[in-house]
Amino acid sequence: MAKNILAIGAHFDDIELGCGGTIARHVKNGDNVIMLVLTNSAYYNYDGTPIRTVEVAKKEGENAAKILGVDNLISVGLETKTLQYGFELIEIINKVIDENNIDIIYTHWDKDVHQDHSAIGRATLNAGRHVKNILMYRSNWYHTSFEFRGNYYVDISDFMDIKIASVKAHENEYRKFGDGWIEFFVNENRNAGQKIGCQYAEAFEVIKVFI
Amino acid sequence: MAKNILAIGAHFDDIELGCGGTIARHVKNGDNVIMLVLTNSAYYNYDGTPIRTVEVAKKEGENAAKILGVDNLISVGLETKTLQYGFELIEIINKVIDENNIDIIYTHWDKDVHQDHSAIGRATLNAGRHVKNILMYRSNWYHTSFEFRGNYYVDISDFMDIKIASVKAHENEYRKFGDGWIEFFVNENRNAGQKIGCQYAEAFEVIKVFI
Amino acid sequence: MAKNILAIGAHFDDIELGCGGTIARHVKNGDNVIMLVLTNSAYYNYDGTPIRTVEVAKKEGENAAKILGVDNLISVGLETKTLQYGFELIEIINKVIDENNIDIIYTHWDKDVHQDHSAIGRATLNAGRHVKNILMYRSNWYHTSFEFRGNYYVDISDFMDIKIASVKAHENEYRKFGDGWIEFFVNENRNAGQKIGCQYAEAFEVIKVFI
Amino acid sequence: MAKNILAIGAHFDDIELGCGGTIARHVKNGDNVIMLVLTNSAYYNYDGTPIRTVEVAKKEGENAAKILGVDNLISVGLETKTLQYGFELIEIINKVIDENNIDIIYTHWDKDVHQDHSAIGRATLNAGRHVKNILMYRSNWYHTSFEFRGNYYVDISDFMDIKIASVKAHENEYRKFGDGWIEFFVNENRNAGQKIGCQYAEAFEVIKVFI
Amino acid sequence: MAKNILAIGAHFDDIELGCGGTIARHVKNGDNVIMLVLTNSAYYNYDGTPIRTVEVAKKEGENAAKILGVDNLISVGLETKTLQYGFELIEIINKVIDENNIDIIYTHWDKDVHQDHSAIGRATLNAGRHVKNILMYRSNWYHTSFEFRGNYYVDISDFMDIKIASVKAHENEYRKFGDGWIEFFVNENRNAGQKIGCQYAEAFEVIKVFI
Amino acid sequence: MAKNILAIGAHFDDIELGCGGTIARHVKNGDNVIMLVLTNSAYYNYDGTPIRTVEVAKKEGENAAKILGVDNLISVGLETKTLQYGFELIEIINKVIDENNIDIIYTHWDKDVHQDHSAIGRATLNAGRHVKNILMYRSNWYHTSFEFRGNYYVDISDFMDIKIASVKAHENEYRKFGDGWIEFFVNENRNAGQKIGCQYAEAFEVIKVFI
Repeated sequence: MAKNILAIGAHFDDIELGCGGTIARHVKNGDNVIMLVLTNSAYYNYDGTPIRTVEVAKKEGENAAKILGVDNLISVGLETKTLQYGFELIEIINKVIDENNIDIIYTHWDKDVHQDHSAIGRATLNAGRHVKNILMYRSNWYHTSFEFRGNYYVDISDFMDIKIASVKAHENEYRKFGDGWIEFFVNENRNAGQKIGCQYAEAFEVIKVFI
Repeated sequence: MAKNILAIGAHFDDIELGCGGTIARHVKNGDNVIMLVLTNSAYYNYDGTPIRTVEVAKKEGENAAKILGVDNLISVGLETKTLQYGFELIEIINKVIDENNIDIIYTHWDKDVHQDHSAIGRATLNAGRHVKNILMYRSNWYHTSFEFRGNYYVDISDFMDIKIASVKAHENEYRKFGDGWIEFFVNENRNAGQKIGCQYAEAFEVIKVFI
Repeated sequence: MAKNILAIGAHFDDIELGCGGTIARHVKNGDNVIMLVLTNSAYYNYDGTPIRTVEVAKKEGENAAKILGVDNLISVGLETKTLQYGFELIEIINKVIDENNIDIIYTHWDKDVHQDHSAIGRATLNAGRHVKNILMYRSNWYHTSFEFRGNYYVDISDFMDIKIASVKAHENEYRKFGDGWIEFFVNENRNAGQKIGCQYAEAFEVIKVFI
Repeated sequence: MAKNILAIGAHFDDIELGCGGTIARHVKNGDNVIMLVLTNSAYYNYDGTPIRTVEVAKKEGENAAKILGVDNLISVGLETKTLQYGFELIEIINKVIDENNIDIIYTHWDKDVHQDHSAIGRATLNAGRHVKNILMYRSNWYHTSFEFRGNYYVDISDFMDIKIASVKAHENEYRKFGDGWIEFFVNENRNAGQKIGCQYAEAFEVIKVFI
Repeated sequence: MAKNILAIGAHFDDIELGCGGTIARHVKNGDNVIMLVLTNSAYYNYDGTPIRTVEVAKKEGENAAKILGVDNLISVGLETKTLQYGFELIEIINKVIDENNIDIIYTHWDKDVHQDHSAIGRATLNAGRHVKNILMYRSNWYHTSFEFRGNYYVDISDFMDIKIASVKAHENEYRKFGDGWIEFFVNENRNAGQKIGCQYAEAFEVIKVFI
Repeated sequence: MAKNILAIGAHFDDIELGCGGTIARHVKNGDNVIMLVLTNSAYYNYDGTPIRTVEVAKKEGENAAKILGVDNLISVGLETKTLQYGFELIEIINKVIDENNIDIIYTHWDKDVHQDHSAIGRATLNAGRHVKNILMYRSNWYHTSFEFRGNYYVDISDFMDIKIASVKAHENEYRKFGDGWIEFFVNENRNAGQKIGCQYAEAFEVIKVFI
């Protein structure tokens, strides 16, 4: 039976990096997938010149969603870097959950050092309190004072190409970060695969799983 | 010698659910108990129709306090769900502590997924930095990425009936949640009792205890 | 496709208490279930008079397995309370895993205060290093300096009666501990069900899950 | 009403260093205190020449107990450094608990780097599973991969002199370690006092407390 | 080769208390040290009368910096107690890092109970994501629900006098708190020294170290 | 000034995999490096036929040490898989430390699932209690119930070739595990490098560092 899946990201590219392979697999399985991106994902130099504009971020995000096979992309358009844990953020997520009878949520790790990521991770814990499956992903590896516990593995061996393509669809970011950006996540997924016994895997931290 | 006790809750019913038996026991022992409820505890549907009004919440909260035997109920009346960890919340709690020479604080678990609960739990750590006993309770069991450590047990066998009555005094909530709501907490208190060797117990996480 | 399931317990009754409902569900689903019980489960008063004999423990354990629908009960017969984390215990478990191509392991929580339980939990981490799913259960609730993280829920609503019957098949223990013994676990499973949204559930701590 | 207190140490001097003030206070309050020392506390150079003999350790341990006001000193006499977590150690402690109806246990921190200390700490968790209060102390500060959580404070301001005298009664150790040994613990107790608001305090990690 | 060092504090005196000896040592070694103090450090009674004025705090902070040998003191002047984890705080710190090619950051412990301290500690994790060394210090010892892990020791034996002088330069605070304030930190540094094998040491929690 | 370095491994190849680059760098810097390998590293099929003989393991281990530039290889020759945390293991390590005035220890992660690894990691905590620097490495990535905290990075960019050569010197293992074995560690070191800002890095968990 088709499941209702919600993938939540702060910025265009977070979902792709953190759980793009898993999303592509859900699509292949016929599940209903919603991608919920909270910010407009634009950002700027100290002098205000844009590194990534609202328009480019959105267009590339839409392309990436298409590559993953996701039609339902909800872009909330909050200002990048300004997310705060609290009522408003919780309610936005809560509403999407309530209206779509969500079975599984993929969300940011609540201890990520990026303020937008951690705000979303924490908000999801509250908004998703009645959802039966919550799994957290990482889309960066900056150091914090907690350790990510990768304990839920999804075999994405058949979807690695799609994942990479969806990340590369963020051409503006790809130009900026270069191939090292791709290489890092490929290495992570390859080693996660070795840990669990398949070619490529995405690793999540379990908040709750219901069988 | 009578002790000065401060029980802090976000909403009318939190204190009752989390430490109602312990409060009733303090009252029985002749201690001075203050119940400090931070929000007006009203909440609404997405369309703005109230599920619980300010007036009902307050009236039922007052009834519950009476059942527990507490005269000193301080209702701050902040908007439900809007509490944020920070200066203002800390100062409100700080002032109550300073004016009442508090010996023991019962407060929310600082890692609770409800934003009002965690804000209060965290604020209490700062506001209560000079108080000699701080104990944290849970008034819901939603999943987070930390685990509650129940390591301080209070025998409430003689006060279980009062606790249940004080929870049921929240008639609006009781109608909404039904008997499963009561049953959950009775089961928790019963099993906590079995763990420590009495009929019913409330379990707290110790921040600090002074003997 | 039928899966190969391994449930590991120190003593006759641990598996039943910790994951009896889950086991009954696997049997119902047509999976191949092995119950591996490491000790003979006998124990004695300080003066050497038996509280539970080898023969009674075994016979009642066999009855319990039958109630759960499990034919394949492996009884290793080590002395109760003498299990130690190390080579021998790891090898015993390792061999059962290698010979049966195990997909999912249910084992003791590695931080349980009972020495037999923790030895098995730790040994399983090594023995099961190439198994794709390891889940830990609790069969007692004594206090330790770590907290169990119940984050994997199995709906056992349709199997609660079977679970209770399998526990009561340990007549010797049931006589000793009385109905409070049953009540404790029923309450736990009932509240776990409330937490995740079903009638009764068993909660496990995830070591790794592979999808 | 007088309580039955059990203080457990690996070597003569551990109890004095870790909870000597608390023990002296219990004695003053009329409680029944048992000191249970598991090893003979002798130790040797690599070449076998004794640094501390069985006889000296015992005699000085008895003197220290007297200074604390404790008559009931049980010396088990196991070989120093050879303690292992397991059946035998658990049973020794279990028996003392069963025969003396113990209300409160003070024991080693289960994560102490000294093998004798951690073995006792872990064994106490099992042996004391039905005891209502278990508190862990530190008697050294070597680094491990866990952090001690001092969250239960006992005001020992009136008993600091007795504590120091009981430590100094271990003349052999005092000669070896010098005044820095005493200074370290005095500083710890003084700063613990500052943290909780008294002159001198001993800090314990709570396993469980029952009120 | 001279290193670029950034010490971050919420209030004038935090850096001195938490890492004053380490700063003095960096200065002695010829490193370039920046002290970044985020608030104006004034605070008031409930009735609004100042306990510490903006002017006094700043002047004494400048004196303290001079005693440590630091010329580069950046005072941001935000309101005391109002710091919040988020975009603005992160950007302020980020800019100082970017403009000064920082090698090592000393910052507040991200779990400190003071809201200004924890906001800075968390903000540094993000702002310093590309800095190779981040170390956290404590400047108070109030209880929280996490434990500080002191695992990076700096020998400050030759700089203890300078540290004490820099703390005492905060005459307004010193008058208020008295010698117990100094004594507490001297005891901490002395015992940290004993733990690691020198006379006085400051202990930090490692976020990341790069060799 | 040359430092005295001790690298401890359970089996021939553990040190190479976990900290081979760091060791090669110490050698290059002129430090005195001791490699201490506790077991003979032989292991067998269930039927007793050797997968790796004592002789082969030793010879290849000696070759690997030469590749790293280490002359001082101490091979204790205990039986593989039989190591237990306790007196004997602690004393062996203690003696090497005492006789060589060790400044820095690299040892197994104390929570590794392999019994030999964790026994050594734990034993080092005690044996190295007076050593000023202890760092833990991983030489496998099997799942446990704790998470490794990589927070101390060593730039091994110039030593990656040597490290790979030293691992491949274990020809018997290399034949068995194939290139995936090498690939896994190269990916780990490459991604660790990306995390900290260099080409290749080895990541350790800090127990204590002294500056």
